[in-house]
Amino acid sequence: MAVNLNLPAAVPVAGVEWATLASGIKKDGVTDMVVARLAKSATTAAVFTQSAFCAAPVTVCRRHMQQNSGAVRALLINSGNANAGTGEPGLTMASGHCDALANALEVPSMSVLPFSTGVIGQLLPDDIMRQGIENAATTLNSETGTTLSHWQDAARGIMTTDTHPKLTSQQVTINGSVVTITGMAKGAGMIQPNMATMLSYVFTDAAVPASDLDDVLREVADRTFNAITVDSDTSTNDSLVLVATGVGEPVGEIHDEWLAFKAALTHVCLDLAQGIIRDAEGATKFISVNVTGGHDVAECKCVGYAVANSPLVKTAMFASDANVGRLLMAIGKADVHSLDAAAITVSLGDVVAFEGAGIAAGYTEERGAAVMAKDEIDIHIDLGRGSAEASIYTSDLSHEYVSINADYRS
Amino acid sequence: MAVNLNLPAAVPVAGVEWATLASGIKKDGVTDMVVARLAKSATTAAVFTQSAFCAAPVTVCRRHMQQNSGAVRALLINSGNANAGTGEPGLTMASGHCDALANALEVPSMSVLPFSTGVIGQLLPDDIMRQGIENAATTLNSETGTTLSHWQDAARGIMTTDTHPKLTSQQVTINGSVVTITGMAKGAGMIQPNMATMLSYVFTDAAVPASDLDDVLREVADRTFNAITVDSDTSTNDSLVLVATGVGEPVGEIHDEWLAFKAALTHVCLDLAQGIIRDAEGATKFISVNVTGGHDVAECKCVGYAVANSPLVKTAMFASDANVGRLLMAIGKADVHSLDAAAITVSLGDVVAFEGAGIAAGYTEERGAAVMAKDEIDIHIDLGRGSAEASIYTSDLSHEYVSINADYRS
Repeated sequence: MAVNLNLPAAVPVAGVEWATLASGIKKDGVTDMVVARLAKSATTAAVFTQSAFCAAPVTVCRRHMQQNSGAVRALLINSGNANAGTGEPGLTMASGHCDALANALEVPSMSVLPFSTGVIGQLLPDDIMRQGIENAATTLNSETGTTLSHWQDAARGIMTTDTHPKLTSQQVTINGSVVTITGMAKGAGMIQPNMATMLSYVFTDAAVPASDLDDVLREVADRTFNAITVDSDTSTNDSLVLVATGVGEPVGEIHDEWLAFKAALTHVCLDLAQGIIRDAEGATKFISVNVTGGHDVAECKCVGYAVANSPLVKTAMFASDANVGRLLMAIGKADVHSLDAAAITVSLGDVVAFEGAGIAAGYTEERGAAVMAKDEIDIHIDLGRGSAEASIYTSDLSHEYVSINADYRS
Repeated sequence: MAVNLNLPAAVPVAGVEWATLASGIKKDGVTDMVVARLAKSATTAAVFTQSAFCAAPVTVCRRHMQQNSGAVRALLINSGNANAGTGEPGLTMASGHCDALANALEVPSMSVLPFSTGVIGQLLPDDIMRQGIENAATTLNSETGTTLSHWQDAARGIMTTDTHPKLTSQQVTINGSVVTITGMAKGAGMIQPNMATMLSYVFTDAAVPASDLDDVLREVADRTFNAITVDSDTSTNDSLVLVATGVGEPVGEIHDEWLAFKAALTHVCLDLAQGIIRDAEGATKFISVNVTGGHDVAECKCVGYAVANSPLVKTAMFASDANVGRLLMAIGKADVHSLDAAAITVSLGDVVAFEGAGIAAGYTEERGAAVMAKDEIDIHIDLGRGSAEASIYTSDLSHEYVSINADYRS
């Protein structure tokens, strides 16, 4: 089940070829390995989890990104095993798998980025991975994996507890030519990314210098992937990659076109980030916590996350309960200096529920309940002391969330 | 249901009289009002929630405590309504109810401390409260509410979603005489106290100067009530009160006796704080997260809370799943500077599960599962970089927690 997950249709991006297969890491012939080969002209930017226990592939990605100056030629992705908490053997394996794919595709080893997602604390099955890599390379060397169905297979191949693939596009006209931006994302739990979400790959055929690509990725990530939470839990494997294949138009020379490109990129990333929430583990509601009137964006995010991560708010949302008291509780516990309750306004949708330090005049349970009955709920919190704002997106806490996470490994 | 909630038996403390009644705030004749009258010799210390949305009674308590120099003569406690998010009318009511009780007991108004717990964002029923206060005062003026059953009624009268009252004692010999410390606590959800728990009252017949009482309360609270979490949610009403009635021996003049008194006080507070967790909403497990080897206590607590509040750790606990990966994830996301994964050791009970940046030699799922099958689980995390330590106590995240909190107001 997913809450109104209706993403704009995807369009393939020139300069990217896919191979997707069931290597055998997951059981029952489920696809679990995805390899992307990128055009030689591609530039790449990436951001990764800030976890102190970051996974072996994240460490190898960071190392390769430092060495390759954004010249990435292949992405190697497996699901079913995160290769996290696996120490030196895990690092050796992640590097070795990059070497294997690099050899098979005849590209430098440091131009391969590895990604893993799944169970933490178990070594990858080395033989299965190497056989899968060989098979994927053979496929890429013998046929062209560039059709929409190849993209759809890839988006499905990176899923774990997701119930739907998340794949979408935006197009903008640059210098008279159409530029496409297409992204995919996976992740349904262990989601409060800290710099990036679990796994997301965004591609454009535009030509963008690596340093510009890095700047725009960090700026866009802060308002999209770094503004969502399912359960406050930050993954060991969060990775967000932006590839500009350079097969199409150069972007960045004309200011207005750069803004249009950035807007389209933001649109794709926000759709994917919100898509993760719409398809979150056990989600029955899609909740936007919009915080305005703050001194700065950081305090708006702090209040937004305090509300979005509160188990008592999330269970009230699951119950469609207009429990304004729990919203006040969550705002009150946020680690923000000297909030003034009397200056704060809290609204459910268009209904003002709390202002002037008390329940708002004209507020009734019935009016609140009418907002809460919907499956998309906007909470608006005005801190009444500045002009900064931020939005955080989250899901509710349902019985299904508990069932999924109490049963995941069994 | 509660997890092994077996508290040492309670003994009444001389200098405290109780009246407990069903005023009508709660329906169906459930007790919802508790009044304590304290001996004139009593000194009192108290700590309160740090919530920016602290409840009206907390504001009035702070004001009265500033004015009365620890000379408290009565506690007025209601359950069923928190008088939080109620603005100026709520403050006026809390003050007015103190005045009413002060008049009826012939004590100064500022010597009355008010406490409320229950639903947030609704005004108290003023007439019902005033009638209850009058009835309680009549009872106190006509009979002696000092027996064990009066204490038990009081502990039951402050409950909300608690399934069991939490009341316990320790005794120490001071200067040849027995000094008693008896405490009660309530709270089962919205529990990650920030300075104190939802409502807890601890009494001793010892004579302790107000400033010493304040110091010892803050020190003990940090290791007991400020070391528990059910759901990371900090209440608007958290209050912890320590009363020394002064009817018994003076404490504090002899260093060894002061240490014995502090140890007994810590024992009572830890039993009550852990009792809250054992009786937490939906709890099926009692979990101790013991963090050692930190630079300082703050970072040990930070790691402990990151683990104890992680929904993915808590659902794994509910499932008795030895999911070491989720423990690593939670440690990794803690807001602690430059943790070194290679220095960290993680054990389940006596079983070392993770060390040297990888799964420990000799660790097996079977050995982990044997620990997790118990209803009391010790997690030990050594950060390997210092000598500070802290323990955090928590419960698991079960279907029952979701049910309780999705249904609470309906």
